[in-house]
Amino acid sequence: MKGIGVSPGIAIGRAYVIKNSKAETTGVLLKDEANISANINQFDDAVSLAINEIGLIKQNPDLTLHEEDIAILDTQIEFISDPQLRNDVIEKIDTEKKNVSDALIEAIANMVKLFREMNDEYMQARSADIQDIGNRILKHLIRSNSVFTQAFEPGTIIIAEDIAPSDTITMNTRNVAGFATQMGSKTSHTAIIAKAKGIPAVVGCGDDLRAIKDNDIVVLDGTTGLVFINPKHQLIDEYTCKRDIYISQSDKLKQLKEVKSATTDGAEIKLLANISSADDLEAVFDNGGEGVGLLRTELLFMDRNSFPTEDEQFEFYKKVALQSKCKSIIVRTIDIGGDKQLPYFGLPAEQNPFLGYRAIRICLDRTDLFITQLKAILRASIFGDLKIMLPMISNVQEVRQAKTIIAQAKQELLQANTPFNAAIEVGIMIEIPSAAITADILAKEVDFFSIGTNDLCQYTLAVDRMNEKISYLYDPFTPGVLRLINYVIQQAHQHQIHVAMCGEMASDPLATLLLIGMGLTEFSMSATAIPAIKNIIINNDTIKARDIYNKVMAMDSSDSITQFLQENTI
Amino acid sequence: MKGIGVSPGIAIGRAYVIKNSKAETTGVLLKDEANISANINQFDDAVSLAINEIGLIKQNPDLTLHEEDIAILDTQIEFISDPQLRNDVIEKIDTEKKNVSDALIEAIANMVKLFREMNDEYMQARSADIQDIGNRILKHLIRSNSVFTQAFEPGTIIIAEDIAPSDTITMNTRNVAGFATQMGSKTSHTAIIAKAKGIPAVVGCGDDLRAIKDNDIVVLDGTTGLVFINPKHQLIDEYTCKRDIYISQSDKLKQLKEVKSATTDGAEIKLLANISSADDLEAVFDNGGEGVGLLRTELLFMDRNSFPTEDEQFEFYKKVALQSKCKSIIVRTIDIGGDKQLPYFGLPAEQNPFLGYRAIRICLDRTDLFITQLKAILRASIFGDLKIMLPMISNVQEVRQAKTIIAQAKQELLQANTPFNAAIEVGIMIEIPSAAITADILAKEVDFFSIGTNDLCQYTLAVDRMNEKISYLYDPFTPGVLRLINYVIQQAHQHQIHVAMCGEMASDPLATLLLIGMGLTEFSMSATAIPAIKNIIINNDTIKARDIYNKVMAMDSSDSITQFLQENTI
Repeated sequence: MKGIGVSPGIAIGRAYVIKNSKAETTGVLLKDEANISANINQFDDAVSLAINEIGLIKQNPDLTLHEEDIAILDTQIEFISDPQLRNDVIEKIDTEKKNVSDALIEAIANMVKLFREMNDEYMQARSADIQDIGNRILKHLIRSNSVFTQAFEPGTIIIAEDIAPSDTITMNTRNVAGFATQMGSKTSHTAIIAKAKGIPAVVGCGDDLRAIKDNDIVVLDGTTGLVFINPKHQLIDEYTCKRDIYISQSDKLKQLKEVKSATTDGAEIKLLANISSADDLEAVFDNGGEGVGLLRTELLFMDRNSFPTEDEQFEFYKKVALQSKCKSIIVRTIDIGGDKQLPYFGLPAEQNPFLGYRAIRICLDRTDLFITQLKAILRASIFGDLKIMLPMISNVQEVRQAKTIIAQAKQELLQANTPFNAAIEVGIMIEIPSAAITADILAKEVDFFSIGTNDLCQYTLAVDRMNEKISYLYDPFTPGVLRLINYVIQQAHQHQIHVAMCGEMASDPLATLLLIGMGLTEFSMSATAIPAIKNIIINNDTIKARDIYNKVMAMDSSDSITQFLQENTI
Repeated sequence: MKGIGVSPGIAIGRAYVIKNSKAETTGVLLKDEANISANINQFDDAVSLAINEIGLIKQNPDLTLHEEDIAILDTQIEFISDPQLRNDVIEKIDTEKKNVSDALIEAIANMVKLFREMNDEYMQARSADIQDIGNRILKHLIRSNSVFTQAFEPGTIIIAEDIAPSDTITMNTRNVAGFATQMGSKTSHTAIIAKAKGIPAVVGCGDDLRAIKDNDIVVLDGTTGLVFINPKHQLIDEYTCKRDIYISQSDKLKQLKEVKSATTDGAEIKLLANISSADDLEAVFDNGGEGVGLLRTELLFMDRNSFPTEDEQFEFYKKVALQSKCKSIIVRTIDIGGDKQLPYFGLPAEQNPFLGYRAIRICLDRTDLFITQLKAILRASIFGDLKIMLPMISNVQEVRQAKTIIAQAKQELLQANTPFNAAIEVGIMIEIPSAAITADILAKEVDFFSIGTNDLCQYTLAVDRMNEKISYLYDPFTPGVLRLINYVIQQAHQHQIHVAMCGEMASDPLATLLLIGMGLTEFSMSATAIPAIKNIIINNDTIKARDIYNKVMAMDSSDSITQFLQENTI
């Protein structure tokens, strides 16, 4: 079987299949009485398991739960034990002959509707909790185990349709040897988490992956994208050998940690990391990262039932700042919307979510949410070198609006005598073509740029990289994309502001010398990707980089550029 | 009530409300026997009406039906009269107590599924017919009248949630005085059809529009976007007066037909039209259009049950060519996908259809469909000055691939001794940022460019213009968009190829002088928009245009640009 290798390395282990938990009714009706009572029993079992699970979450020492979280969990237990829910479900099974999953889905949908239509705002908000409870029970019903409390066996290979962003937060990856998913691309969440944790992964394997059953032996090559199910002994031996070689090479690369990141002719290149929480910092320093070019803040908002308070956010940013060893940390303000949804926010369904209401667009519309986050970041800025970065900027007016709101947040803190770094730097993501094309205009307004190549490439080429039908067009080496990146770097230099790159391209060995040739000196990537990129930097010089740059920029197609880079850079 | 005025003029008349015909089950169960028999009667009535409707379509002298179309209609009658369908529906009503709409929707869904799962390709294709039949009966059930056979009363104002692309083809707009829709934006299909026909229209009125009932008196101002329901007599008088003034002004503009389109200092500006079929040509010449800058070919593929044959397509293009009075006609190859779907093609549902499988991407994948269209256009090219235009080009490789396929189509015609214009010109739409940014590379490959500002603006700003939450960001006067347009025009001139603009911006009076200042000399738009744009051209000179251009390109935001243009161009 062949998919897309997204996180290098070899994994050999036993499959653990995560079933899809989409809440869709099947319409299958029950035939006889025995069937009916079996379905009722299944419901009761699932309820017990769900209550049990919540108990385990409350006691889990690895999760730092706040009082508010505990209160939410207690309310969940109350709801789950509510006789009304049980009556509704049983009636559907008993009278309407619905199967237990359908009965539960429909009963929950009715309750959600009921709450949503109430005149009281508080009660309306509870509809999200009910949906959450429904999903929790359903997970146990259809044996899509919550990865939440799961402690995997050593050497587990996770097999799934796809892994949801919220699952990636709570998943205990300690014993996970590899991931293989049906869906996804190089830039899917599964790929990002696997790379961040250094776990081999293959995505986009297609429907064939369904053939894998629990405990099947799986061999997976995250470099070539190959996946083998129950292979012959010979192949297992071969791959065990490959795995050992890979690990020893990785270890060698890790020893570059103390080596200075500079070309042979002395040009210093700063290697930064993309992280999602303070927990990721250890890996950053282990791999020789010199700071954080992108602290995502979405995890702080996920897997919850309401927005985090200013204090909760403050604690999160403060923890990162305190553990940052005085290195700079670029905090990206919330980038929800698109494929990153928050159930409790109730974002509208959109025809084209990637071209929709997301990131800074939400922040400028919902200034209450934005100010809360800004104040939390500002308060934490006295504990480390935090900077603020705004995502999805498309025009200069948005930057000016955001700066006005930042000034307002500062004013409120001043009035409350709360200390903060008044000189905190503010930068923007360059990830929309319009922003790249007007980098000269935007450079006058901000302290730094960070080029987000994933979105920039998507919009510049009008391609949804998750769409398998046309993802072949998603290629950052297309001349149109390269020209934009180059223009942004030149304009940043001309206006004497910092420019970094935090998209996937920053960790692509094929791009390293080309980007250095463009004049880029700050790269931000998954911590685990840093050693390999550093290895390229310390073995080349800027003359070669400049030469590659000149030749590539004169080429007219991504095919010729990719071929040239393959032959000349690695 | 206030919406977005998308087609200017005043309409005063009586409302005709088109109900939404989405096939969604309601889940409402029937309570008693009387109810059950009433629902069965409703089904039988709807079936009779549907059969009757098909009869009317067959006899309609305004529709030019081919033998194949008649055969399809006959098959539809057969399916509708099938006792199996009636039995299925009645069982659901009688035994499962489903209401008649739910019963029909489910019965059709089951049949569709059955056919789709058959091993025979022909039978699989029939599933689309069954769905179509289901929709046809449903329309009569829920009184969402097909606009197909509708002859409206004079002075009718159409009120709808939105008007589907396929409905815009067959709608008899003769007596339609105006349109008002809940959804939509400046560039929705309703807006396009209304402008093309010169009918006043207001879109995006929101949910308030639901308050309008059939035969309510409606006053609508397509310029300001105001809509009044059952207003006082005084207001009706006021608007009647306004309407008369507007009509007399329009008549005056129409007299510009014979006036040469040139600035006062003699720069000739070519005004072309965007059309959808030969029927639109009369209006083009009536309004002084000098040719067709965009012949859309989608209508040829819509409201059918299978792809049109090469001969059918040939007849369509030939008809346009013969009526073109030797003016050039730019034929855009099929631009389906995105928001333009063909039920019989079965395109996959996509997360972000605007960034998906559409237009040239489909043609390069399904070369059989592409070759058929190309051969039909080539065959028609001996009857007029036809040119081929490729939509949604994102990189040079696609252009080269398409040119190879065009060469193959020519080869096949040569071998069959079929005559065609071997020197037919081939151009591309510039509507994806990457294409605009590499206009210099693409100019070497083609004979002409046409700038599609609607999509170009959407992708450059990462905004779905149909999404009301963020459509405020969709603004072609954003510096990032203007710079791309300017670059494309400069590169076309430098490489000595033609460049036109066929997006909405070409008909925006605010943009005319700015675009002339950029050096654009070919504008393509709705026929009815030509007189107003010509009026601007003949009253200004290129010195003023160049001055406006210089000032605008130095500005940093769309707000300041729009304000400046409003003060200086009209």
